[in-house]
Amino acid sequence: MSWGLDNLPYGVFSRRGQAPRVGVRYGDAVLDLAAALHDEVFATGSLNAFMARGRTAWHDTRTLIQNKLSTDQSVTEAHLVPLDQVTLHLPFEVADYVDFYCSIEHASNLGRMFRPDEEPLKPNWRHLPVGYHGRAGTVVVSGTDVARPSGQLGPGRFGPTAKLDIEAELGFVVGSPDGAAFEDRVFGVTLVNDWSARDIQAWEYVPLGPFLGKSFATSISPWITPLEALPRIKGRAQDPAPLPYLSREADWGLDIALEVELNGEIVSRPPYATMYWTPDQMLAHMTVNGATLRTGDLFASGTISGDAADTRGSLIELTWNGTEPLKLGNGEIRTFLEDGDVVTIRATAGAIALGEVSGTITRGA
Amino acid sequence: MSWGLDNLPYGVFSRRGQAPRVGVRYGDAVLDLAAALHDEVFATGSLNAFMARGRTAWHDTRTLIQNKLSTDQSVTEAHLVPLDQVTLHLPFEVADYVDFYCSIEHASNLGRMFRPDEEPLKPNWRHLPVGYHGRAGTVVVSGTDVARPSGQLGPGRFGPTAKLDIEAELGFVVGSPDGAAFEDRVFGVTLVNDWSARDIQAWEYVPLGPFLGKSFATSISPWITPLEALPRIKGRAQDPAPLPYLSREADWGLDIALEVELNGEIVSRPPYATMYWTPDQMLAHMTVNGATLRTGDLFASGTISGDAADTRGSLIELTWNGTEPLKLGNGEIRTFLEDGDVVTIRATAGAIALGEVSGTITRGA
Repeated sequence: MSWGLDNLPYGVFSRRGQAPRVGVRYGDAVLDLAAALHDEVFATGSLNAFMARGRTAWHDTRTLIQNKLSTDQSVTEAHLVPLDQVTLHLPFEVADYVDFYCSIEHASNLGRMFRPDEEPLKPNWRHLPVGYHGRAGTVVVSGTDVARPSGQLGPGRFGPTAKLDIEAELGFVVGSPDGAAFEDRVFGVTLVNDWSARDIQAWEYVPLGPFLGKSFATSISPWITPLEALPRIKGRAQDPAPLPYLSREADWGLDIALEVELNGEIVSRPPYATMYWTPDQMLAHMTVNGATLRTGDLFASGTISGDAADTRGSLIELTWNGTEPLKLGNGEIRTFLEDGDVVTIRATAGAIALGEVSGTITRGA
Repeated sequence: MSWGLDNLPYGVFSRRGQAPRVGVRYGDAVLDLAAALHDEVFATGSLNAFMARGRTAWHDTRTLIQNKLSTDQSVTEAHLVPLDQVTLHLPFEVADYVDFYCSIEHASNLGRMFRPDEEPLKPNWRHLPVGYHGRAGTVVVSGTDVARPSGQLGPGRFGPTAKLDIEAELGFVVGSPDGAAFEDRVFGVTLVNDWSARDIQAWEYVPLGPFLGKSFATSISPWITPLEALPRIKGRAQDPAPLPYLSREADWGLDIALEVELNGEIVSRPPYATMYWTPDQMLAHMTVNGATLRTGDLFASGTISGDAADTRGSLIELTWNGTEPLKLGNGEIRTFLEDGDVVTIRATAGAIALGEVSGTITRGA
């Protein structure tokens, strides 16, 4: 069962006319934790207060929920609310949002496209997980429409983006700033679609990086899967060996299979297992300069792209910057996104469902 | 009087053993607003709740304070706390932090230094205010020590930065996301020192922009000067004329004179009046793609550098990347900052003092 006792992701839900509160998904229902566990930390509209309690509380609460659900059905059933009776909300208040660039295939593809006469990877790429800060205030929950942004497309040219794209990513949610180990600090994972306007980005990004080409919206899935639920694997081999501060502290590779659906048709199956930099390395890098963490920090992997053409996590790669359009089953073709398009990214880690992050493109203002 | 009735900047203070609350500075004291105005919005440790009330409330409150201070001295004196009896705190919760790059002299200097064979300005620079997101969680109040960050300095090289620098900037604080005019949304200004590790930054920043070279600390002054207190001037002429969305909505040039003090000696006097892009243009650009604002968003101007050599707002410019060391009056020389150095940036707008942002460099971990 994809949403069984070994999964139990956290989210924030509301029933009609009621205030949002924290729950865990179990089957096709959500368990009202404030009611089931008699703990007011769950009677708020975000996971932050619970996450701030730290790793021992995360583990103990998960165990308690598992025990209640498996042994105390009369109690828990009273507090299981069918999913079709609830609205799901942004599950946590995002503190800072950092986006990395950890797929060697993705970074290489973009290099080949835009700098065909150079090495695909910049000199720093194999030495550190390249990353930058994105806009925390425009992180939205799955299901939120995405209005096509307008912006500068070149000197004196302004208009709606003609290259609206997706980026299929995995996001890591910092629960606590304290502790030395990765799992002391990272509470869980979420799916991320880092919507991108490639033409706006191309004109603006030199020399300080992406800004308006990304900041209009970043969608995340409504469920935060606890780290404890995820099967782990070895990370991909790295050459050269990274500096000591980037040495891997444990096996933090994740065998997560994503799929990208465009208007009901699967157009890509990105494999998270192929990522070059692992999340413990991202976290070590992000903090090596003394930068502090806060509950609610979100850091994402960057676009997940595998080696095969049909495993790339962005349209700019899938259509090679629009030169090789996608032919959809209904006869339509796509280079970048059209108004009305619906993009849904789903993922599973073995038997564990991570749910989905979905968004519909609307015509901009 | 620099801190008179026409100034009245807001801050957050605490008396020994008491919780932080909001006040305004008047002379060498701070007026306890919760006590003087009987309004609980000021009995919190940040300005955010008050700022969220919007422009009419900002204006009415300022008028009320001015009236009380000028006519009701018996009441207000009871609530004026001498500055030497208080601790000043970070005055607001920073939502998103954006840093721009609005000085044409600063951008040109960096271009000449690092790309001597090219045009100093990148092709986009005169068409849009280049900007990027910084780390909101490491914005700290003046007086906070700054630990020298370590990081990657090149392939396989790790250590403390050898090029620790300052950036003298002006920051704009978003009070309310609502309203069409600049002054509906921007509550006031603060001084910013955007500490920078130039060696870390140079190695990491391609292609996604600055990250760890900046994210360890950004200092701001403890006082937020209301927009209403600031004399305004015409913005600098622009060529080419910017796109319509960037046309200036009013005179939002600001005649603010900064001074940068290093270990007690003034080493630069950056003139804000020379900035190429005005703050209304920054705000228009930042939101033209549909990106929403939040109370507490901070956007900064980027390094303020004038035309003359002794008006540059960073050491990398003042010492031309270390090739022309500064000779200090005590016989010492500086290229970049040494441990123990104290940097204080002060500013005035005519008779209005903006206060100072100060920090001491400590040896990193």
